[in-house]
Amino acid sequence: MVGEQFLLVPGPTPIPDRVSRAMSRPMINHRGPEFREILEEVTAEVKNICCTRDHLIIYPSSGTGALEAAVTNFISPGDKVLAITMGVFGERFADIAASFGARVERMAVKWGQAADPDMIRERMLKDPNREIKALLVTHNETSTGVYNDIKMIREAMGEHPALFMVDAVSSLSALELKMDAWGIDVILSGSQKAFMIPPGLSFMTFSERALKASREADNPRYYWDVSLGLKYLEKGQTAFTPAISLFYGLREALTMLKEEGLENIIARHKKYRTLVRTSVRAMGLELLAHDNHASPSLTSVIAPASLGSNRVRQYMSEKFNIVMAGGQQQLDDVIFRIGHLGYIRELDLLSVMAALEITLAQLGHDITLGVGVSRAQKVILENI
Amino acid sequence: MVGEQFLLVPGPTPIPDRVSRAMSRPMINHRGPEFREILEEVTAEVKNICCTRDHLIIYPSSGTGALEAAVTNFISPGDKVLAITMGVFGERFADIAASFGARVERMAVKWGQAADPDMIRERMLKDPNREIKALLVTHNETSTGVYNDIKMIREAMGEHPALFMVDAVSSLSALELKMDAWGIDVILSGSQKAFMIPPGLSFMTFSERALKASREADNPRYYWDVSLGLKYLEKGQTAFTPAISLFYGLREALTMLKEEGLENIIARHKKYRTLVRTSVRAMGLELLAHDNHASPSLTSVIAPASLGSNRVRQYMSEKFNIVMAGGQQQLDDVIFRIGHLGYIRELDLLSVMAALEITLAQLGHDITLGVGVSRAQKVILENI
Repeated sequence: MVGEQFLLVPGPTPIPDRVSRAMSRPMINHRGPEFREILEEVTAEVKNICCTRDHLIIYPSSGTGALEAAVTNFISPGDKVLAITMGVFGERFADIAASFGARVERMAVKWGQAADPDMIRERMLKDPNREIKALLVTHNETSTGVYNDIKMIREAMGEHPALFMVDAVSSLSALELKMDAWGIDVILSGSQKAFMIPPGLSFMTFSERALKASREADNPRYYWDVSLGLKYLEKGQTAFTPAISLFYGLREALTMLKEEGLENIIARHKKYRTLVRTSVRAMGLELLAHDNHASPSLTSVIAPASLGSNRVRQYMSEKFNIVMAGGQQQLDDVIFRIGHLGYIRELDLLSVMAALEITLAQLGHDITLGVGVSRAQKVILENI
Repeated sequence: MVGEQFLLVPGPTPIPDRVSRAMSRPMINHRGPEFREILEEVTAEVKNICCTRDHLIIYPSSGTGALEAAVTNFISPGDKVLAITMGVFGERFADIAASFGARVERMAVKWGQAADPDMIRERMLKDPNREIKALLVTHNETSTGVYNDIKMIREAMGEHPALFMVDAVSSLSALELKMDAWGIDVILSGSQKAFMIPPGLSFMTFSERALKASREADNPRYYWDVSLGLKYLEKGQTAFTPAISLFYGLREALTMLKEEGLENIIARHKKYRTLVRTSVRAMGLELLAHDNHASPSLTSVIAPASLGSNRVRQYMSEKFNIVMAGGQQQLDDVIFRIGHLGYIRELDLLSVMAALEITLAQLGHDITLGVGVSRAQKVILENI
């Protein structure tokens, strides 16, 4: 028996039972006191996770909606924007800015590598007239499994006044990210990753400086408009009907995150990274990302060329009902991606590593069964 | 004991148990075959409800998002747009068009009344150069409880080539609306009304003619872009991560709608209208909307001036945990609105009418208990 599908993609991630049950509560009036209480509670908690006292708006949308919200509120047509791209999601952020009339300069990083803060420092220094209005960066690039050092990138910007906007869709609450202390202007995220709830909500935190910029930015906007959002937030409401069931889920999930503790969650994701990488390497497979910038939330594994990554994924799916993500675009059939983000247990990763070994053996890869699993076990033992 | 809050606002509407349970299913890969099957099934069903063979895109957003999608895809900056406004939501549609650079001419109808097709016919005849690119109409104006006769308005347009766009957020699947037969170009709706699922999904159906217009329309867009949406739909996917749990709910709700039958659902809402209006009138209260254009999905009741509508709502809420909507803007404290949309039983309406009588009596309104309820009972008896 294979049972229910086990989802190991880097989002949507599995939903805890407590969250599922919370989402089944009856509807309430979204302009009444009960919803107000929920909205205020989750707004405060998500701000805590961003380590900020600044503004937060929660949209009924996917994560991409939050990226569009950032562009339409804080960037004007004709603005020069520097976009660091190192995969599908960095490209998407740049594409959105271009769609809304920004003059986008892409600093393209090879897929599988991280952005080099020194190159960003150099580029900023070559902009004495402060033409660059915004710097767009992906915190954790889901398409490759690489994360950027946001703190160092911010430091590399120095005194340059460009708005610093971070796509943290697959990182927020799993990787350290300190908005106020590090000087980030805009953080964007989604609900279906480390927040352990289904897709459908997105988050945008933004600084006072960004809010000021929005008052002068003249891209057309309505649905994403922060001034409208903040006006309603003062009354304990959202501008437009909120996705109420997802708010129920979010409140419960935030309670769970608080119980575990943000630092523990960040440490747990790092441990999962070590567990998966050590284990997969012991199976004789290569990893796409270098140790220095490997994502704690997902691992991109290069399949043996003779097999191709899609055959591995297919066997895992058919035999074990485990769904892993493939490679996108230039990485199609090259890598498979193991998500270890959100509500994932050590137990799950042990079984997945064991299943992966069986799969590799079955497909003709030379492997001694247990060689990867035993490494994973050791990582767990060492961290007890 | 008052028990759980009973929601009688015109959306969000109560969620059937079957739908709640469906939404608790584990997450699946939104780029895999299971989701594809769901997406294709619900797309076909929602198209059936719109009585169309044209295009449909489902967005992760509130209903307002779909209005913005229509504007950004089908209208260009500088386009002349005729917006029929008769309440908050008609104004909103016009505001969005204006935000995106359209030259909006508002044909303002007094709140509580319906649009006059003859005035629209006249206006269209006065546009021999076909400057008007789009006509925006609200099917069912939630802020007043008035519906427009969409078929007659379309006929009034005659051969005028303006795109005919209908905000059907609070009407689709509760009121008759025949996209292809009547010649509607764009229908917009949301999930939290007659679809009986929580807020968070919006629907946009659009004609081939609208699609063609979108290729020439040059408002900036990305999240709402129909060409991107249709490209992914061909692969059985959505452009961006869909709100998976709401899709589970939608599939189950569509099954329920099919079981009941679209014609029966439409008839049921008309019966509810008769029930509520007859009953409330018997209590000596006045109604905002004339019988000829009173909404089948919600009823706006004018509270006795000596009481004010907010006191009535407050008592209903405190004593019975029944939540009704108030009046918005100029109608604040004048009307209260009883939603009878979606998953509402005759039983519910009987109890609400009885509770309303008690409330009125308690607040000093001269009323014989049972006078309204007995009328409601008769309506039910006559329709068995």
